[in-house]
Amino acid sequence: MDEYSGYKGRSLQFLKENKAKIGDHVEIQADEIYSGSLMPRYEQGDDQHIVLKLKSGYNIGIDLNTIDKIKIKTPSQRKEEDIKEIKENPELPKILLLTTGGTIASKIDYRTGAVTPTLTAAELYESIPELSEIANIDTEILFSEYSENITPDHWLKIANRLNQLADSDYKGILVAHGTDTMQYTSSFLSFALAGFPIPIALVGSQRSSDRPSSDATMNLLSAAKFLTSNDLKGIFVVMHYGKSDNVIASHIGTRVRKNHTSKRGAFETIGDKPAFLLYEDKTERNFKREYFENSEYTPRINLNTKSALIKYYPGFDPKIIEYLIKDGFKAIIFEGTGLGHVGKKMYDVVKKANDAGIFLGMTSQCIDGRVNMNVYESGRDLVNLGITPLKDMIPETALVKSMWAIGNYEGKEAIKKIMLQRIASEISD
Amino acid sequence: MDEYSGYKGRSLQFLKENKAKIGDHVEIQADEIYSGSLMPRYEQGDDQHIVLKLKSGYNIGIDLNTIDKIKIKTPSQRKEEDIKEIKENPELPKILLLTTGGTIASKIDYRTGAVTPTLTAAELYESIPELSEIANIDTEILFSEYSENITPDHWLKIANRLNQLADSDYKGILVAHGTDTMQYTSSFLSFALAGFPIPIALVGSQRSSDRPSSDATMNLLSAAKFLTSNDLKGIFVVMHYGKSDNVIASHIGTRVRKNHTSKRGAFETIGDKPAFLLYEDKTERNFKREYFENSEYTPRINLNTKSALIKYYPGFDPKIIEYLIKDGFKAIIFEGTGLGHVGKKMYDVVKKANDAGIFLGMTSQCIDGRVNMNVYESGRDLVNLGITPLKDMIPETALVKSMWAIGNYEGKEAIKKIMLQRIASEISD
Repeated sequence: MDEYSGYKGRSLQFLKENKAKIGDHVEIQADEIYSGSLMPRYEQGDDQHIVLKLKSGYNIGIDLNTIDKIKIKTPSQRKEEDIKEIKENPELPKILLLTTGGTIASKIDYRTGAVTPTLTAAELYESIPELSEIANIDTEILFSEYSENITPDHWLKIANRLNQLADSDYKGILVAHGTDTMQYTSSFLSFALAGFPIPIALVGSQRSSDRPSSDATMNLLSAAKFLTSNDLKGIFVVMHYGKSDNVIASHIGTRVRKNHTSKRGAFETIGDKPAFLLYEDKTERNFKREYFENSEYTPRINLNTKSALIKYYPGFDPKIIEYLIKDGFKAIIFEGTGLGHVGKKMYDVVKKANDAGIFLGMTSQCIDGRVNMNVYESGRDLVNLGITPLKDMIPETALVKSMWAIGNYEGKEAIKKIMLQRIASEISD
Repeated sequence: MDEYSGYKGRSLQFLKENKAKIGDHVEIQADEIYSGSLMPRYEQGDDQHIVLKLKSGYNIGIDLNTIDKIKIKTPSQRKEEDIKEIKENPELPKILLLTTGGTIASKIDYRTGAVTPTLTAAELYESIPELSEIANIDTEILFSEYSENITPDHWLKIANRLNQLADSDYKGILVAHGTDTMQYTSSFLSFALAGFPIPIALVGSQRSSDRPSSDATMNLLSAAKFLTSNDLKGIFVVMHYGKSDNVIASHIGTRVRKNHTSKRGAFETIGDKPAFLLYEDKTERNFKREYFENSEYTPRINLNTKSALIKYYPGFDPKIIEYLIKDGFKAIIFEGTGLGHVGKKMYDVVKKANDAGIFLGMTSQCIDGRVNMNVYESGRDLVNLGITPLKDMIPETALVKSMWAIGNYEGKEAIKKIMLQRIASEISD
């Protein structure tokens, strides 16, 4: 990004004349007095506006015609050497910030107005200097992917790297991750690293750090505080809470879901309040049982992707299941209707799948609540045909658990047993 | 059901000695005085308890050992002839109650404790005599299915029957329907019967009418009042609202989702408040635009089930899409991640599906919010590969709309056009 990125014509001339550069802290006298950092502009922007990031975090465009004066208060402080300037404080605990990509490690591409993943862990750290007041932070880039491109191979990569750190002196580990599939990754880590000795917080952001009202800074700071101020085990997802501007939630990694495409408070714990609500001055704890059923660290870092999540709907073609049987799938997790149903037209193929030795689990597309296959005859029929009701496990978690189960255990009975066993808070009772 | 259904041993003897029969209104003097209707028992129940339905609607089991006395206040009034006794009131509007099955038309099977669909429309009407104060109600059984067994053929049956009633003198039509797939049926009716001249309310219940705290009565009564007190068009889903005991919601049939497996207030309008909240003494209206974009009645009662709803997740096997291409599918609706993404590993097969002339639509598994495929490179890549972002249409509605679209329109461009066109409030802007 150059010193005038995106500015052109009149606005570029104005900035050059006044020796103001992107990143400078300036005061602009217009219809009122504005104080903030000079921001870059999109290339498609006009040449009539100067954009400031105000102290509140919001960006504002100021019409050149209204500007009387621009004063540089503090020149841009961004220097490459700054990154190395952060000194260790022996009083503070140590945290690792592992980045895997996602919006939180992204910048707006000012050519296109789109967001691309470019920020390294060190740059991310540098952009939030307050982190150094909470902990001594080591940074490491594991890879850089948007989370829609995360695959089970990436889960293994993350889990294996974390496993190497089980005996480290870190107080906790921050994993910067895209939000799209964060709940799948947090579920996998919860099962693969059951009993992991220190807490792990997956942190993302819905808006990149250089956008107005980005949630990146607050999510990271709160997650760092959360990791250093609790003696916990578990894999948490730490993201903005609800509509509030200053409350962050720490969710159980197997009970959380991204329930909104764009708002900051998109993540919700299903069927309960978040495990922790992190306020500026206090932490509200709703977390009761131990995260891991077994406190001993028992890593099982294997998986098998021959499991499918199948959402049932009227008109669903049973031949899709036939295809899975033929293709050697080992598990199918149904997202049934209501209490855990699929229609009668599925019975033959369900029986066939069961006879083929495939583990068949039932969750609900209602998402909230628990399946109960005893209430209606459909449910009882399906249990008789070999389907296992998976209590209140959320569908995405059940899928990930099934991939993990068939990667680590042999035989349908063993898989059924482990699927019904509470490993990492994925089942609420 | 006989006069003592489910009672045995001591409790049966006690009832016989006191000449109390199921359905009698009784007063029992025990540790306190209980007043209510004598209820049947499950066969697995013990012989130590008498079950009363209290006036509040709740059932209570009273230990025989605590009972001093039982007094019959009013004997059971259930007579087969009662059904015919309801007289027409020429002052009241006319409504049709069409039953298709589901819990609302079900009874507990006291042998097994399970619920089975046995209630006819007339019995349902008879069980809620207050209905006759709201409207003159004709009843008709179209079929009797739990809604997990409803197929697109049933949608056609319902739509064709309703179409015959477009010129009737009914003020509105109640459709009793199971809750599992109610939102799919309401979506289909919304598209197939666009502009239908009178309002239609789909009504279900989460608990059958003879269970404690059943929502059947209140949902039906409120829906009947709603139909008769508004001059509206549209297909609504009328169900209990939230946790309240006495508020019912009327949802837009294309914007509603069953979001809990068991609670009464399971149905929610996505991204907004329900169109109407029905209180005992007032109606809160949140409904602004016309339900149907075009007010003219233009029935298009066709569909084609060669559309699939595909939920994407890490590890999703692209070969499932290959299978759909080979099998001649005409539309695929993706439930992508976040703003509407699938991973890079899907690109080849997406291109192939597009080249094969399949309509490809994108919705989000976040359910709430709208897809936006311009923010990230993944989104733009997918649009270039031929995927159409479907705004804030909810995935299930988009699936049903696509089945309807490919059943009524020819050619990918025509289908794309109609998928993006607001027909029945399925898109919020």
